[in-house]
Amino acid sequence: MIHPGTGKPIVPDDLEPLFGHELIKQEFSTDRWIEIPEEVRQILAQWRCTPLYRARRLEEALDTPAKIFYKYEGVSPSGSHKTNSAIAQAYYNMKQGVKKITTETGAGQWGSALSMACSQFGLECVVYMVKCSFKQKPYRRALMETFGAQCIASPSDTTEAGRALLASNPDSTGSLGMAISEAVEIAARNEDTKYCLGSVLNHVCVHQSVIGQECITQMELADAYPDIVIGCCGGGSNFAGIAFPFIGRMLQGKEKIRAIGVEPSACPTLTKGTFAYDFGDTSHFTPLMKMFTLGSTFVPPGFHSGGLRYHGMAPMVSHTMALGLMEATSFHQLDTFKAGVAFAKAEGIVPAPESTHAVAATIKEALRCKEEGKSETILFNLSGHGHFDMQAYIDYHDGLVRDYVYPENEIAMALAGLPSVAE
Amino acid sequence: MIHPGTGKPIVPDDLEPLFGHELIKQEFSTDRWIEIPEEVRQILAQWRCTPLYRARRLEEALDTPAKIFYKYEGVSPSGSHKTNSAIAQAYYNMKQGVKKITTETGAGQWGSALSMACSQFGLECVVYMVKCSFKQKPYRRALMETFGAQCIASPSDTTEAGRALLASNPDSTGSLGMAISEAVEIAARNEDTKYCLGSVLNHVCVHQSVIGQECITQMELADAYPDIVIGCCGGGSNFAGIAFPFIGRMLQGKEKIRAIGVEPSACPTLTKGTFAYDFGDTSHFTPLMKMFTLGSTFVPPGFHSGGLRYHGMAPMVSHTMALGLMEATSFHQLDTFKAGVAFAKAEGIVPAPESTHAVAATIKEALRCKEEGKSETILFNLSGHGHFDMQAYIDYHDGLVRDYVYPENEIAMALAGLPSVAE
Repeated sequence: MIHPGTGKPIVPDDLEPLFGHELIKQEFSTDRWIEIPEEVRQILAQWRCTPLYRARRLEEALDTPAKIFYKYEGVSPSGSHKTNSAIAQAYYNMKQGVKKITTETGAGQWGSALSMACSQFGLECVVYMVKCSFKQKPYRRALMETFGAQCIASPSDTTEAGRALLASNPDSTGSLGMAISEAVEIAARNEDTKYCLGSVLNHVCVHQSVIGQECITQMELADAYPDIVIGCCGGGSNFAGIAFPFIGRMLQGKEKIRAIGVEPSACPTLTKGTFAYDFGDTSHFTPLMKMFTLGSTFVPPGFHSGGLRYHGMAPMVSHTMALGLMEATSFHQLDTFKAGVAFAKAEGIVPAPESTHAVAATIKEALRCKEEGKSETILFNLSGHGHFDMQAYIDYHDGLVRDYVYPENEIAMALAGLPSVAE
Repeated sequence: MIHPGTGKPIVPDDLEPLFGHELIKQEFSTDRWIEIPEEVRQILAQWRCTPLYRARRLEEALDTPAKIFYKYEGVSPSGSHKTNSAIAQAYYNMKQGVKKITTETGAGQWGSALSMACSQFGLECVVYMVKCSFKQKPYRRALMETFGAQCIASPSDTTEAGRALLASNPDSTGSLGMAISEAVEIAARNEDTKYCLGSVLNHVCVHQSVIGQECITQMELADAYPDIVIGCCGGGSNFAGIAFPFIGRMLQGKEKIRAIGVEPSACPTLTKGTFAYDFGDTSHFTPLMKMFTLGSTFVPPGFHSGGLRYHGMAPMVSHTMALGLMEATSFHQLDTFKAGVAFAKAEGIVPAPESTHAVAATIKEALRCKEEGKSETILFNLSGHGHFDMQAYIDYHDGLVRDYVYPENEIAMALAGLPSVAE
């Protein structure tokens, strides 16, 4: 990470105003293993180990020789993988004496997870929710409020960043980048307040790696090992969570896999972005990170997978991509909803719109296996359920979901504004 | 059961127009054990055994010496215990060559469960949903539609029963009794169509007993046994599911327990009803069943726990009550939502409004234990999550939830109309 003022690499102290101390240590750590504290495990144990399922009924419906497995993170209290890192982040902040946490949320998965985590440790929680999601998903907000959090539509008039954004576009539907700016501002200004991020950073991804680690043990029990590991990609944490432990084994000379990140065609960071230093937020409060990016000023169109509406990508996922250790692919949302409904009918679980991207890629690979007569083993991360996203399914049933054209001009403009960094 | 026309006991043949053959056999069976078919187990195994949790954080929040355990049925694909009997009912009907299933639903838990079950076995599914719930819960309807079912607000103009009800009251908010009349009418009229019920009957309750059976084994693993077993009571199936296996042991001379059924104060069937023969539905299509009832023409006020808005009670639960093997208690909804929010903050899971009744009774018992300095063990059934009931929580947060007075006059009038049956 580069300090935007000095152009020099960030040191841990630079992040102290924003993040909890222990989390900063983890962000910079080069340790291969970081122990999950006992108090965090006690809570995670309520739903972990999460189930690994063989999708036999989906296999039958597709008439494919492929073996499909999925890890179901939707059994967590907030309904997605996000709780894995939320509990840890809230815990470390509580230990340090922090009183209040701010954050942003897109689809609401992260905001719900952090709200739940904060309620466990008696922390105040303020969530800036991307405005278009805030309107689409009143039940998400209700969930956060039930856990005792405050949920504010972003851009808002509660921060300088928000007021500036509203002044330039009063009708802004918001973006993750904007919401991050607001949440960061509040944390930077208040001594007893820290900021938490739901994806992108190393200390977030590391707490998601429990997903893939469990998968390795569970697949062993099933006497199987994946040829392909699939996860949807927004900020990168659920993909990193399931894929990195497998990629780690591959780097140790063990089993080879194909790791596939799946993104929305309307926000194609890995498939059409540039690998460069860029800001994590719209208002340029954050350090610069080397990552695949569509430009920090790019505002993705308002498609339903709010959790995938991010201009950047986890530096570790970007690095993995740059090293050629993973592939990326993209789908339009009409195709992902079609896949999601097919999955629900076969397996009985309604996927979150984000997760339908992983489902769509899985179905595509399973149909390729059928064409080629191969019985490959596919593992994908069903990162969350769609219980709070039923308006999206209503719109889909009613024919109101449309595909967004690849926003070429907007992305080109945003990329043209990339900061120049001497490496 | 008594035939309303002849006044004689129902024989299995009388039910053939409505129910699948194997289910009728189970309804009349006196076998102590009925095997779950392998094909049904294959599907149930996706989420069963459901978790049994020790509510340590709720215990701490209440500062009670009581040990609180809860069985969490919300991990099923449709989010409640209802799936246990839905899968079995859909399976038996499919085996018999039935093409289409009709049913009613209140809160939507049963309708979602049956929709999911029908999608597993390629059956058409038509759900009559109580009109006030249909309006309150668009996401429930979307869930059923995602599983491929058709969901109709009841009373509707698609049946004679519905048209008659609308003619007498065009603004009717509906009731389970009315919706049953509509669903039963469609099944009775069509050769390839059968009706399925989500609670009340023996063949429904028996498939819920897996809950209590699992609890016995799970509590053994935890080296514990409940002094008190608690479930909410609408039609009676989730209560029967968790409590009957424990009551069965008690009848065999094993451990004594207190079994407590919890109902809404605005629909107090067990606590204020009459033990008598009554119809299961409003339009009097069903056989007469001996049960606690508020009168089949009683329309419960539109409180949020749609699954508890039923005038009757499972005959087996009623029998258990009459024998003094269980207790019943009731709560107003402001108190149950308060309990639900306290539970969510402590345990991280938002309960369905129905289940908050069990939570409220559990908290009451735990606080009694604190007063009396006793460390009793309490087990309750968290029968479902509230993900599709967040509008109720929004209303509660906004101060819009109110208690309904005990509807004394309406119930007295309905009870005055009880059919006379020579026993």
